[in-house]
Amino acid sequence: MWAALLPVGRGADGGYSRFTWTGPELDCRAWFLDEASRRDLEVERDANGNLFAWWLPPGGARSGAVLTGSHLDSVPGGGAFDGPLGVVSAFAALDALRAGGHVPARPIGVAAFAEEEGARFGVACLGSRLLAGAIAPERARGLRDGAGRTFADAAAANGLDPDALGPDEDLLSRVSCYVELHVEQGRALGVPVGVATSIVPHGRWRLDFTGEGNHAGTTLLPDRRDPMLPLATTILAARQAADRHATLATIGKLDVVPGGVNAIPSAVTAWLDARGPIDDAVRATVADIERDARAVAARHGVAVALAEESYTPVVDFPRGLRERLLAALPGAPVLPTGAGHDAGILASRIPTAMLFVRNPTGVSHAPAEHADHADALAGVRALTAVLADLTRDPPVTPR
Amino acid sequence: MWAALLPVGRGADGGYSRFTWTGPELDCRAWFLDEASRRDLEVERDANGNLFAWWLPPGGARSGAVLTGSHLDSVPGGGAFDGPLGVVSAFAALDALRAGGHVPARPIGVAAFAEEEGARFGVACLGSRLLAGAIAPERARGLRDGAGRTFADAAAANGLDPDALGPDEDLLSRVSCYVELHVEQGRALGVPVGVATSIVPHGRWRLDFTGEGNHAGTTLLPDRRDPMLPLATTILAARQAADRHATLATIGKLDVVPGGVNAIPSAVTAWLDARGPIDDAVRATVADIERDARAVAARHGVAVALAEESYTPVVDFPRGLRERLLAALPGAPVLPTGAGHDAGILASRIPTAMLFVRNPTGVSHAPAEHADHADALAGVRALTAVLADLTRDPPVTPR
Repeated sequence: MWAALLPVGRGADGGYSRFTWTGPELDCRAWFLDEASRRDLEVERDANGNLFAWWLPPGGARSGAVLTGSHLDSVPGGGAFDGPLGVVSAFAALDALRAGGHVPARPIGVAAFAEEEGARFGVACLGSRLLAGAIAPERARGLRDGAGRTFADAAAANGLDPDALGPDEDLLSRVSCYVELHVEQGRALGVPVGVATSIVPHGRWRLDFTGEGNHAGTTLLPDRRDPMLPLATTILAARQAADRHATLATIGKLDVVPGGVNAIPSAVTAWLDARGPIDDAVRATVADIERDARAVAARHGVAVALAEESYTPVVDFPRGLRERLLAALPGAPVLPTGAGHDAGILASRIPTAMLFVRNPTGVSHAPAEHADHADALAGVRALTAVLADLTRDPPVTPR
Repeated sequence: MWAALLPVGRGADGGYSRFTWTGPELDCRAWFLDEASRRDLEVERDANGNLFAWWLPPGGARSGAVLTGSHLDSVPGGGAFDGPLGVVSAFAALDALRAGGHVPARPIGVAAFAEEEGARFGVACLGSRLLAGAIAPERARGLRDGAGRTFADAAAANGLDPDALGPDEDLLSRVSCYVELHVEQGRALGVPVGVATSIVPHGRWRLDFTGEGNHAGTTLLPDRRDPMLPLATTILAARQAADRHATLATIGKLDVVPGGVNAIPSAVTAWLDARGPIDDAVRATVADIERDARAVAARHGVAVALAEESYTPVVDFPRGLRERLLAALPGAPVLPTGAGHDAGILASRIPTAMLFVRNPTGVSHAPAEHADHADALAGVRALTAVLADLTRDPPVTPR
């Protein structure tokens, strides 16, 4: 499976750029459908752009399903494993179950959720948010990519009905739990496989600084309303606020208008990513950054507007399902994560759990993201054990 | 002429984006050729992408020519007048001379120089630099646009021979002087038309900050090598250094890699524009900025490299030609400019002079850039008077 996936959307530096419904991501979707077809799985495309491949039990019952999988899209120049490791491991675990003669008592589904990174339309986990009813469909329809195209328009161009976007109660009612395997994104995991306890609160905010465009060579310093200066102060303020509140704050994306070497910009937009162990700390971090941005912008005659694009409070994965996983994986450590995941979104509707596979570099969202082959196989074995346990008779509804 | 030009490359906010050899700029070139053809001018396309339209004297002599004109390309989202005002006024002045029965004793040429803004390939006045031998052809060939395409490649795609780029001694030997009319780019001119004394020293530098890309949600603050932080300090340092040395310093263009909301960038590039009344002050400004950038980058584990992309020392326009202009334009004020121009580049090879037309907003490189209709007509009358004077018998070689 990796041989087919690894060349798709890979840049010269080894980083992956697979944005929702662009060429490389469509290639990944085609790969998913091909893998499902090879295994005689029943494919379901939901109304929100998410893909599912179902292994139905003898008799074809569709309820009580155990769902696994992850996502196939990437950040710009991301790593090979964030997302695809969960989908590849899901298919490999099905193969292992079948090779071992396992007969599931309920369906096993492999999911590929759409726009998990939010790299194209700006809201992370957009596919699972829509499925779970965690974002209003009208807001999703209006999200725009960098070229100004709306999500509604892109969805329609890819065979979806924009008016049908939104929660899928039928699908959710058929799923008893979701177990997502994911590459670990820090250095916290010292063994091949661990089990998640929680996802820390995280969100993203958009800061628009509006000044006045002008000629860089003829406009005197006192006459300038240069939005770059409050931006610069805000970048430094974000780091200081994160340090003060023991959180993380990152500005990783900027848009400078018009972006000419010899032009004072008229406007700059910065996107702020903030996370931390408790909601209050994250909120206080963002409030401090906004306060500092407003103060310095006012001194430069620059207007500033802050908008929350998404916010996910702490997600504590349900203890019951986690303990089932730990029983199937004796000795596995537990750990929280600072990264958002579809399992965090779906936790509001169904029991969810996560397995992490060790990342020796600790790097993620960059080409150095890595999982050793042996650790990836350990992840498959762990997922296989968990799926076997959850689809044995008698039926169990863990909480 | 404005009716044909004004719709070309205009954005929703009224700003113009006409980048060398892109659709809107090619439309402007076609407009130029059309205007030349309507006037039975002889068109010459040089080896560097510059266009010339010649009105030859009776007998067809080609030497001692008086050249006027400007450029047709723009910065991103620039104004309508920067460049085109000089070309439109040149054609209008020719019309006025002909309507008045003027018979030139030597050729009058209208020039449209290529890539004056440097908005596509990063080096301002690239066409006139190549013509004058002020940039090595091998360096010009290797310049790349934002999509990574080389100037050599783009030149070849537009009918030029990349191996033929470089100084054109034949063309230069035929030109006795160059008079460029341009919209003023500050608020210094209180009357409709003025005459330039000098172009202040100016240059552009590229600063590359290289850190380590990583996940914004899982990488602890002490583990980060985030290039955004030294960038931010450098933006502030640039303003402080300009203030200290009574110069101008602007960072108006950034490139953030990979540019994901939830990714710590691996690299950031910033372009610095610096200008000032004397060379030493500009050099000291850039040296201070580099020192501060290096100090803060080192503290963040970020590498920084500074490269000079272009530098033009002070250009004092030759007194002889300026006094000829002032004799033809009684009472016109003289003023320096902080903006670079092709006339500043060509001054190293031939006598050059400039006329400025009042800009009531003082804004340039932005949609608010403006020249009143009456002032533009005053500019045409001034240019007409200057061209008439310079092409009367007996021949004069002003210095």
